[in-house]
Amino acid sequence: MNSQELRAVTWTAAAEDGVPSVSLIDQTVLPHTLERLDVTTVDGLVDAIVRLVVRGAPAIGAAGGYGVALAMAQAAREGWDRARLDAEVDRIRAARPTAVNLMVCVDRVRPLVDKGMAAVLAEADAIVQEDLAANHAMGAHGADWLLDRVAPGSDRPLRILTHCNTGALATAGWGTALGVIRELHARGRLETVYADETRPLLQGARLTAWELAQEGIPHYVQADGAAAGTILRGEVDAAIVGADRVAANGDTANKVGTVAVALACAHAGIPFIVAAPTTTVDLATASGDDIHIELRSEDEVLEWAGVRTAPAASRGHNPAFDVTPGSLVTALVTERGVLEVAAGELPGVSGTADPRPCGV
Amino acid sequence: MNSQELRAVTWTAAAEDGVPSVSLIDQTVLPHTLERLDVTTVDGLVDAIVRLVVRGAPAIGAAGGYGVALAMAQAAREGWDRARLDAEVDRIRAARPTAVNLMVCVDRVRPLVDKGMAAVLAEADAIVQEDLAANHAMGAHGADWLLDRVAPGSDRPLRILTHCNTGALATAGWGTALGVIRELHARGRLETVYADETRPLLQGARLTAWELAQEGIPHYVQADGAAAGTILRGEVDAAIVGADRVAANGDTANKVGTVAVALACAHAGIPFIVAAPTTTVDLATASGDDIHIELRSEDEVLEWAGVRTAPAASRGHNPAFDVTPGSLVTALVTERGVLEVAAGELPGVSGTADPRPCGV
Repeated sequence: MNSQELRAVTWTAAAEDGVPSVSLIDQTVLPHTLERLDVTTVDGLVDAIVRLVVRGAPAIGAAGGYGVALAMAQAAREGWDRARLDAEVDRIRAARPTAVNLMVCVDRVRPLVDKGMAAVLAEADAIVQEDLAANHAMGAHGADWLLDRVAPGSDRPLRILTHCNTGALATAGWGTALGVIRELHARGRLETVYADETRPLLQGARLTAWELAQEGIPHYVQADGAAAGTILRGEVDAAIVGADRVAANGDTANKVGTVAVALACAHAGIPFIVAAPTTTVDLATASGDDIHIELRSEDEVLEWAGVRTAPAASRGHNPAFDVTPGSLVTALVTERGVLEVAAGELPGVSGTADPRPCGV
Repeated sequence: MNSQELRAVTWTAAAEDGVPSVSLIDQTVLPHTLERLDVTTVDGLVDAIVRLVVRGAPAIGAAGGYGVALAMAQAAREGWDRARLDAEVDRIRAARPTAVNLMVCVDRVRPLVDKGMAAVLAEADAIVQEDLAANHAMGAHGADWLLDRVAPGSDRPLRILTHCNTGALATAGWGTALGVIRELHARGRLETVYADETRPLLQGARLTAWELAQEGIPHYVQADGAAAGTILRGEVDAAIVGADRVAANGDTANKVGTVAVALACAHAGIPFIVAAPTTTVDLATASGDDIHIELRSEDEVLEWAGVRTAPAASRGHNPAFDVTPGSLVTALVTERGVLEVAAGELPGVSGTADPRPCGV
């Protein structure tokens, strides 16, 4: 499969039964099985978001945009009044609390409900196209900055560490952090990737590794706990991750385990880069202290494939995200350019980043 | 089972068939099954050490001490000459390269071979008894220091994070870092324990959680990647870990993932404590740069219970240990007292630690 054609979230106007659907690559069964799940109801979409059939902040945002259209279609079929429709759209909007994209994208599309399905779908499509364009722009900005910073005047290929999955599966396509990695590979400047496995759900071992394998990019899967040591031993030139929410001061919520990578990069003196579209920057969030961290099911850390690994008496502590202080973010790569956050270029300061969210 | 009676490594003078054995709690099948593996040959012992049937530096050391006796018994049964016996003891000594205890304890017992089996067993027993005594002393020193440092003049119970397993299973009994935790619990000063699951082999989720459950100590199992965020959010008062080798400058090799915990503690300004007997301090190792880091099988990070989780094309990177710089080690707790390493009390400086290894 060509990564440029890989689309985790699409709209199908009418499936066999004439009912429109949001079509999702089922990310819970990769890397061994590639299949799509077509959801036709709000219940189905919320369930898919909660179960991580679709995950990755921009991909969830795209699903949220199409979700408004899905709710409209279900409202027409089932005769919902406007209050019910609003309540159902609110359920989609709240399906995962940490990623700001879901809320921003739902809020962008829902004002168009009164203009009809075509207008809603056009806006949802625009979100996808803008995200794709943003990801390619991020890839170019990030690769430019990184090569200039890490290997000026050299043509040596780089060794990059990444955490979780930020590729085509996590976005409308191409990827954010993985888009920068793809761009380095396209330029012949990528030696290898260390992909943290990303417990508890192994998005790194299953999804990032799958995308890298599809591209023929050399890579190692490693335990999350190995990341800091790999960095401190000098085996990595830079770490690049995505974000679920970036606060006005540069504090960044991302998949649990990210802040340990950032701490190790700071100790080793190598760049820690966050690649995220401006939709992910939430200027209404002053700092990481204001970001709600989703606590997921204890079973995710107490079981494996339904089989209990911990003792019966054990409790699980399962925060889905952590917050990396902006002081540890060497660079924030957006589609509009690069902010050197740790050096004082904050997203929330006028002139350093455009505050308009979701590309509007 | 009473933890004070829990012995991971024992010597059985003559099993049913009249052949002596080293009896090991099989740590690969915990927490759901508690069973012992009796090994009667050097091959069996080396295999048990490599497969982590027995693991934890002091427990491996104890197994190494009894291993000399095991090799002597096999030599007598099979008519080995002295060169063969020496070679077989060398195989035991080299079964795992990072833990210094194994080598030190084998080297302590093997000079007694000429004095006969009784002398060898007496020395191996002495290693076990000294380790037990050292662990109880460490528990007291560590608890004293920690309560004085973290909660002076208060009687509030503490929230402790630990990584990997350092309990009765990892030692001759009681535990090193987990011994300090047991001591806090015994004093009524322990609120809860965050036990990192410790990928790839889940010693935390399986073994530490099992020992804590046996004691009725409240605890959470969490993904290794969650540790840094838990610390930075202020949910932890101190982290306590064990060590596989401590260099003269305080650099500490321990289970992969440890250095990320240390970096987070430094960032949060809470103590990062290494609890390890003086047998673990290797003054012949100047710094962490001189510590060989064991690379284990790629399959440990590419498979789960024999089922491939990563794509077929992926490689695995599986260092078993990492090195925490001494500058991040707030306190090194040994059976002789506490060294504040980050503050400049180095194990290798005369007067701050007795350089004699293995309690001799």
